[in-house]
Amino acid sequence: MKETIKSKILETGAEIIHLKGFNHTGIQEILTAAGVPKGSFYHYFKNKEDFGLQVIDHFNQYFAGSCRDILEDAACSPLQKISRILQRFIEFFRSKDCAYGCPIGNLSQEMGDLSPSFQAKLKEAMDAMVDMYAGIICEGQESGEISSRLDAKQAAEFLVSSWEGALLHMKIEKSLEPLENHQRFIFDYILIS
Amino acid sequence: MKETIKSKILETGAEIIHLKGFNHTGIQEILTAAGVPKGSFYHYFKNKEDFGLQVIDHFNQYFAGSCRDILEDAACSPLQKISRILQRFIEFFRSKDCAYGCPIGNLSQEMGDLSPSFQAKLKEAMDAMVDMYAGIICEGQESGEISSRLDAKQAAEFLVSSWEGALLHMKIEKSLEPLENHQRFIFDYILIS
Repeated sequence: MKETIKSKILETGAEIIHLKGFNHTGIQEILTAAGVPKGSFYHYFKNKEDFGLQVIDHFNQYFAGSCRDILEDAACSPLQKISRILQRFIEFFRSKDCAYGCPIGNLSQEMGDLSPSFQAKLKEAMDAMVDMYAGIICEGQESGEISSRLDAKQAAEFLVSSWEGALLHMKIEKSLEPLENHQRFIFDYILIS
Repeated sequence: MKETIKSKILETGAEIIHLKGFNHTGIQEILTAAGVPKGSFYHYFKNKEDFGLQVIDHFNQYFAGSCRDILEDAACSPLQKISRILQRFIEFFRSKDCAYGCPIGNLSQEMGDLSPSFQAKLKEAMDAMVDMYAGIICEGQESGEISSRLDAKQAAEFLVSSWEGALLHMKIEKSLEPLENHQRFIFDYILIS
């Protein structure tokens, strides 16, 4: 029961923060949306910052969970894995009318300069994304499907950075075109170069 | 005198918003930092949103002004122009200890989903950056210095998007490496492909 209430607060808070940002979201707003009694928050979280750091873990686990079946699909080549992951997120943003963006990117933008504990936690989350792509790129280089010219770590960092930028661009274009453009350049010019 | 007070409010507000974001910055905080009397704000701006939209124009003009001498330097080739612009901003972020990021990108992330008037104004500002790079890329394609494989507009969009993402990454890495990585991939794999 305890875990259910905590999860409810985390999930509801994550969704509101994803759209509105951390500083612009109030604790009371989250509790009202979650339908949870007022006193509950400080039972589960030390303060708003502690809550925010746990929201980052929540997003991180969500991202890893969203990619797991693709990463474990033995029938899928490394290039296909990258393509399917990007495509899955493009479909997600289509269903969200090009809003939200990446919660890790949003919070990096908003909190990277304002809180060292957010910065460290967000760097961990971003590193996990980079490591995932670096692993797939190495795999693709071994099988000869991905260019051996590339430094896998640098290429993965570029892939993640420029994806974050494409999402930011999507939010003002209100179109999937920046994501499709990202995919085009990453595939045609970087991975298969 | 009137214009001086208005400029003072805009410049001070732009600097605080650049670091802390729009929603997290209060009007009173700006007026105090600018040393301007409390009543002044509504003399020059209809409301906080009107002020925010004028801050975007201010950033846009600053960006255009920062690049003008490079763009007009007839001794500079198209590739050198892109390199010098990126290098100038890398030096700017070195001087700022990897904080701040791009104000247009920050506000796109923060406000793109929250205000249609911000979204439209930010799209205008982002389009201006894309057009600037597309112009240089076309010039470089004509002189044979930049790959003719590229669609200049798409390449410029990718350059701007991925630069925005690199800046976001810089804010949590607290290192210039994401910007240098961006420059490396844009030059070695895209422009000279």
